[in-house]
Amino acid sequence: MSGGRLLGIDIGGTKLAVGVATRDGTVLAERVAPSEAREGPDAMIGRVLDMARSVVDEAGVAMDQLDAVGIACGGPLDPWRGVVLNALNNPGWIDIPIVRRVEEALGRPAYLDNDANAAALGEHRFGAGRGVDQLVYLTVSTGVGGGVILDGRLRRGANGNAAELGHVSIDYRGRPCHCGSVGCIEASCSGTNIAVRAREALAATGEASSLRNLPTERLTAADVTAAVRDGDPLARRVWDETTEMLGAGIVSIIHAFNPQLVVMGGGVTRAGDLLFEPVRRVVEERAMPWLRDAVRIVPAELGERTGILGAVAVALDGPDLAATSPSTNPGRTDA
Amino acid sequence: MSGGRLLGIDIGGTKLAVGVATRDGTVLAERVAPSEAREGPDAMIGRVLDMARSVVDEAGVAMDQLDAVGIACGGPLDPWRGVVLNALNNPGWIDIPIVRRVEEALGRPAYLDNDANAAALGEHRFGAGRGVDQLVYLTVSTGVGGGVILDGRLRRGANGNAAELGHVSIDYRGRPCHCGSVGCIEASCSGTNIAVRAREALAATGEASSLRNLPTERLTAADVTAAVRDGDPLARRVWDETTEMLGAGIVSIIHAFNPQLVVMGGGVTRAGDLLFEPVRRVVEERAMPWLRDAVRIVPAELGERTGILGAVAVALDGPDLAATSPSTNPGRTDA
Repeated sequence: MSGGRLLGIDIGGTKLAVGVATRDGTVLAERVAPSEAREGPDAMIGRVLDMARSVVDEAGVAMDQLDAVGIACGGPLDPWRGVVLNALNNPGWIDIPIVRRVEEALGRPAYLDNDANAAALGEHRFGAGRGVDQLVYLTVSTGVGGGVILDGRLRRGANGNAAELGHVSIDYRGRPCHCGSVGCIEASCSGTNIAVRAREALAATGEASSLRNLPTERLTAADVTAAVRDGDPLARRVWDETTEMLGAGIVSIIHAFNPQLVVMGGGVTRAGDLLFEPVRRVVEERAMPWLRDAVRIVPAELGERTGILGAVAVALDGPDLAATSPSTNPGRTDA
Repeated sequence: MSGGRLLGIDIGGTKLAVGVATRDGTVLAERVAPSEAREGPDAMIGRVLDMARSVVDEAGVAMDQLDAVGIACGGPLDPWRGVVLNALNNPGWIDIPIVRRVEEALGRPAYLDNDANAAALGEHRFGAGRGVDQLVYLTVSTGVGGGVILDGRLRRGANGNAAELGHVSIDYRGRPCHCGSVGCIEASCSGTNIAVRAREALAATGEASSLRNLPTERLTAADVTAAVRDGDPLARRVWDETTEMLGAGIVSIIHAFNPQLVVMGGGVTRAGDLLFEPVRRVVEERAMPWLRDAVRIVPAELGERTGILGAVAVALDGPDLAATSPSTNPGRTDA
């Protein structure tokens, strides 16, 4: 152990976030900048490394006081090799050996995991899931993702892609999902697709709705929840369907994992009780008693710092990652 | 370590099976008898213990050569306390301290797990899943159940009820399931419910079908698959729906766990390729590439010995069970 400091790097589809923190998650310095997919991975990595050097400097620590660097990035990726295989949220990120690039540039050991796993680790270590051994984290945002901790450890599955919880289906004949499956939670309940469904509902009828006063093509999930609060019946219908579908998906997830805690984060959860209450009601009605009585469904706590603290948790989880090994990784060569 | 022998006791809804095996799964002696729910737990336990003594005797081992006893039983149950809470497949089994009863009668350490977890452990140790660290076991039988092994260990969840995979839903507005949820895999794809759906299909039309030659109320899933092989179009339609739904459920399960292997057992899987081929096709079409390419879907190997060898695997897994502890068990008191 050198200085007990960790560097977290979150490479998102819309922003880059870099921070230095202590082992208990106190952020000493942080920087956030927009990410621009069109700049390509090389330029983006260069920018991230500049941010990293600045933030380490700003935190008043020397580079060699960093115990480790954690990197969170869109998947699919190979956490054991430290390679981004084909980041779905950053076009052009194909077979990028991000861990090697960061280690070479900063001279510290680095670890990689996908953004949802990182957020799960972050909530487990610093947020709503502290001390909880059986935890499901679900992010409902532009997309829907997840991370699962069982018996106190992140479970990565055969090749690092476990907990693609946004692609648990709620309707085998439902909406086609961009992933190739049908009826995925994400296909209906992501922020993006809540807005899509609201647009469809507006187009399907001539029913009055305050949402018609907004530019249709820029309608967001937040517009829908605002309209629900204002008593708009069309928005209410879209929202009720959303919470019913999301709740049903969470029931399946609870039946699969028997968690103590489902932690929900991501932009759509800013709706607060408007989201959590009906989702909990669906779980109350549908989940098997022994599983239902074991679980609570709570909001994530890390908020705007999910990216940085998730990445810091990835750094802290490095020894666990290194101790496991991929059981198989057949996808490696055909990216 | 005494004699390197293990006793497996499988208490099923229709049969009792007891066997003595070596640590590598060689069965030295076994007995099977029908179970009769109406005899009640006391009489049934008495009968099981008689079978156990006989089979130990028949195997030519002394009781103290048994390293441990494994008990497989319908859930929900508490594996850590060794108590059957409310066996859904054996009415009247409510709060039965089966582990204590067996330990007192036989004088050997005993361990308990639910039948599907036991079968998963059995396939992992002795069957199709040997050497596989990330494994999902699915039984498609009278009901649909599951067991999940991640990073080489059975994952039991918060209170021992993880992997209720039959109650992953494929249709949030689908068929009501006896469990209280809606559209569960079990609600459509269990042997029982395949037969129900065939009966409904017969009642819905006057369409000719060889199934009409059978007594409707005794129609089984095996009758449906036999009719499919004979080219019966109505049976084919029911079956195609079944494999589409089961396949869709397995896609969700693969997205949740990222297994290397999905092992499928249970009576309905006797349909063989008639089941496996279309299910694999659905997975091929719908699962995310990185997850799909990591997984194979194969038949279970233990067949008629699933019960006994599953229970033997529970005995061998005893130290792992003892090393973990339930994170919470709120359901304990309100059975």
